[in-house]
Amino acid sequence: METTTTPFINHFRKSITPDALRTYIAEYISTFLYVFSAVGATMSSSYLMPYSTASDPSSLVIIAVANAFGLMFAVYIAANISGGHVNPAVTFGMVVGGHITVPTAIFYWFSQLLGSTMACLVLKYTTVQQVIPTHAIAVEMTGFGAAVIESVLTFGLVYTVYTAGDSRKSSLGAIGPIAIGFVVGANVLAAGPFSGASMNPACSFGSAVVSGNFKNHGVYWVGPLIGALVAGILYENVVFPPRALDSLPGTINQVGV
Amino acid sequence: METTTTPFINHFRKSITPDALRTYIAEYISTFLYVFSAVGATMSSSYLMPYSTASDPSSLVIIAVANAFGLMFAVYIAANISGGHVNPAVTFGMVVGGHITVPTAIFYWFSQLLGSTMACLVLKYTTVQQVIPTHAIAVEMTGFGAAVIESVLTFGLVYTVYTAGDSRKSSLGAIGPIAIGFVVGANVLAAGPFSGASMNPACSFGSAVVSGNFKNHGVYWVGPLIGALVAGILYENVVFPPRALDSLPGTINQVGV
Amino acid sequence: METTTTPFINHFRKSITPDALRTYIAEYISTFLYVFSAVGATMSSSYLMPYSTASDPSSLVIIAVANAFGLMFAVYIAANISGGHVNPAVTFGMVVGGHITVPTAIFYWFSQLLGSTMACLVLKYTTVQQVIPTHAIAVEMTGFGAAVIESVLTFGLVYTVYTAGDSRKSSLGAIGPIAIGFVVGANVLAAGPFSGASMNPACSFGSAVVSGNFKNHGVYWVGPLIGALVAGILYENVVFPPRALDSLPGTINQVGV
Amino acid sequence: METTTTPFINHFRKSITPDALRTYIAEYISTFLYVFSAVGATMSSSYLMPYSTASDPSSLVIIAVANAFGLMFAVYIAANISGGHVNPAVTFGMVVGGHITVPTAIFYWFSQLLGSTMACLVLKYTTVQQVIPTHAIAVEMTGFGAAVIESVLTFGLVYTVYTAGDSRKSSLGAIGPIAIGFVVGANVLAAGPFSGASMNPACSFGSAVVSGNFKNHGVYWVGPLIGALVAGILYENVVFPPRALDSLPGTINQVGV
Repeated sequence: METTTTPFINHFRKSITPDALRTYIAEYISTFLYVFSAVGATMSSSYLMPYSTASDPSSLVIIAVANAFGLMFAVYIAANISGGHVNPAVTFGMVVGGHITVPTAIFYWFSQLLGSTMACLVLKYTTVQQVIPTHAIAVEMTGFGAAVIESVLTFGLVYTVYTAGDSRKSSLGAIGPIAIGFVVGANVLAAGPFSGASMNPACSFGSAVVSGNFKNHGVYWVGPLIGALVAGILYENVVFPPRALDSLPGTINQVGV
Repeated sequence: METTTTPFINHFRKSITPDALRTYIAEYISTFLYVFSAVGATMSSSYLMPYSTASDPSSLVIIAVANAFGLMFAVYIAANISGGHVNPAVTFGMVVGGHITVPTAIFYWFSQLLGSTMACLVLKYTTVQQVIPTHAIAVEMTGFGAAVIESVLTFGLVYTVYTAGDSRKSSLGAIGPIAIGFVVGANVLAAGPFSGASMNPACSFGSAVVSGNFKNHGVYWVGPLIGALVAGILYENVVFPPRALDSLPGTINQVGV
Repeated sequence: METTTTPFINHFRKSITPDALRTYIAEYISTFLYVFSAVGATMSSSYLMPYSTASDPSSLVIIAVANAFGLMFAVYIAANISGGHVNPAVTFGMVVGGHITVPTAIFYWFSQLLGSTMACLVLKYTTVQQVIPTHAIAVEMTGFGAAVIESVLTFGLVYTVYTAGDSRKSSLGAIGPIAIGFVVGANVLAAGPFSGASMNPACSFGSAVVSGNFKNHGVYWVGPLIGALVAGILYENVVFPPRALDSLPGTINQVGV
Repeated sequence: METTTTPFINHFRKSITPDALRTYIAEYISTFLYVFSAVGATMSSSYLMPYSTASDPSSLVIIAVANAFGLMFAVYIAANISGGHVNPAVTFGMVVGGHITVPTAIFYWFSQLLGSTMACLVLKYTTVQQVIPTHAIAVEMTGFGAAVIESVLTFGLVYTVYTAGDSRKSSLGAIGPIAIGFVVGANVLAAGPFSGASMNPACSFGSAVVSGNFKNHGVYWVGPLIGALVAGILYENVVFPPRALDSLPGTINQVGV
């Protein structure tokens, strides 16, 4: 009888079933592949401009398109299994809306951070002499300003994930992963040179660990998590409340995209 | 009994229900995020070329792709709620076709202009020393020529919105927001250096207010609104008239995309 | 009794009904908007590099993405009305497969050529001092080599249009216009500096008329039409023959995309 | 009675039916067109920078977008006929999962290698003076490191093909070819300057044959095939096992995308 256990213990048990483990592997694979694209593209553009210390407009196109295309396919391949979060901020936003339990979210976070770190390690050792780049803030800006930008960007991302996973979306649901990829691409073009446009604590964490450079690292956790929090609250309670179609809070109800 | 009120009063009442307020919030959020992408990308490309007064081809790619990806997701996240106009010219085009009432359109416009202005304010204060760019006309051109170009570009946009929202589109309806994003991306590539390729009075208004630069501002209202007017008339009456499937004019019948 | 008329007369009568006229207007609008994007983008990239006689890699990106995004939305907005040909070579390919009658095809061609010419005229007069660019062949190459490339590129385009319009495509039919846009984008990147990568006699014709430059113009008719011919024959007879699902030849059976 | 033949002979007989021949033609056409885009775009970007020995960031954008758009439409046009492999590594991955028999796979490989070689031949003779480029490894790197990168990139590609072909994908199945195109585009941006980012032994083979340059050619077979092997095993056995919906191993069950 499960009635004798607390909800947390009950949720934890559901988080270590074989099906749950499959979702963690899916998050690991998708985050690995996305970070490989995003960080690899930054390395590619640096490699093509060896004598330049600053980036140039073409480099920003490379990084933005790699983020857009990379996140689109990473979300796509995990959508039916884990919901395709590929990002601790998205997972946090899903906890806020009650679409995923806290124990499951912890396993998601661990899988995402591990996948990102492994991707940066593979990039470091295969490319031999290249530096693993980390997200950075424009010299004129403050950390507070960068955190505000990151929270705005991540708000857009998590809000789009919520929309894509909403079954009331009918036929538009089919292009959800494209919308998620495009929001990240647009955001990198808008703010890449200013705040770094990470929107993804796992991507920032992996590159920071492997490069050993944690400068301003807190910005890439605080900003995205606040943006995800606001997106989850606003979508679920104000803009498009679930009403009768609502699933019961606390159930493991993967929001697919 | 509603028969004792005028249609306008009746429409106004329907424009201040909780469901109607949700649509205004959706327009505010989508316009904020789209303008953040579009104006932010213009600032990013300027920041990456500090010593150059003119833009270069890569900058145009940055701005066009940011507009395409940014509008695609902005339309996507609002499509099922407000119809995803994200643009006063689109809202005007929907009034022309009788798909939205005048009172509702006024609230849409207000939400769009406010969202755009807020996005430019956030960009201004977070990036500290950056200038908010406004749409501008090539020195060789006249304001009339630019208005003609803007009306042609906006005609293409509003015509595409009409197509995307047409329920007779069957399975092609699923990619409507992509078509809307792509039309704007193509148009920015075609005319960005000539007329500015705004197509969106809200975007032009927000950046003009925050920068204090209203030079040629009228072009970005006259051109888009004329283009939207022609698109609405042509689509509804000539190319694809509704016939039996027509909804009654005057009803609040959101055209989703 | 229609049995007393020849098939051609009968087809001609069906080509001048109000519904048929709507399809010609749709072709005119879509071709106008596509050519405005494609030719406008070439002018934009030239304008941004005033001191350079040759194009550079970024210019090719601008032109290719404008072609891809521009054709995607141009096909999309006409798909349910005229089938979204936007190209005399595509119309010819549909005649080859029996999906459209010769009289209708003639009206399609006229609409397409007129739309393209009008788009180039608007671009010429609004931008005042700009030159309307025409498709050109690399100096090292022969006209024969360019025609071969154009026929290969157009083969890919018309084959994709056939696939997109095939009702046996099931759910993949929804992304047909995206595939059609992407094939043109990829082809411009592959062959733009070599053959001009027109694939569209209407686009080449309009820019040639308005600029008065008909150098090598025949290449942009011979190449695309041969490619379309081969694509129509190969798709219908070898790769994916219609069999029992076949519609009767000679009926006006628009192939939508 | 077929019971008297071995399974291999039985499979071989099914591989030489008219319907099977149609699938080989489809693979030939799609691989021809994809390689034409991918190799042609590399030639275009070199042609636009005649005095530069190294590539620059814009060139990488050209090549990546041509791969993304080119593979998307190449997969799309063959999806309903041959499954749209367009790549010997994908075909190998499908053999691993039992979705295609070994005799059929051999015919697929032959069609793909022939299509790629023909595309490079057409490019060589039409462009007269241009060199056919081959995939190359950054000077700082080892062949082992490049093979590791190629296997990671191809893992992502084949895993995405598996996902796209999974009928449990429901409405997301419609955008499968887009995800497949985008994974290749992101991967070229991430690793093009490091390993060449081929992911496709047929593309590497065709350009090597026509240029006569087989330097490091083995890397572009070993890496992709290992990546495909791991993707097939992981998807089918760990992340998303077929269970009750499983088709019997050994049947010719084309995985469409």
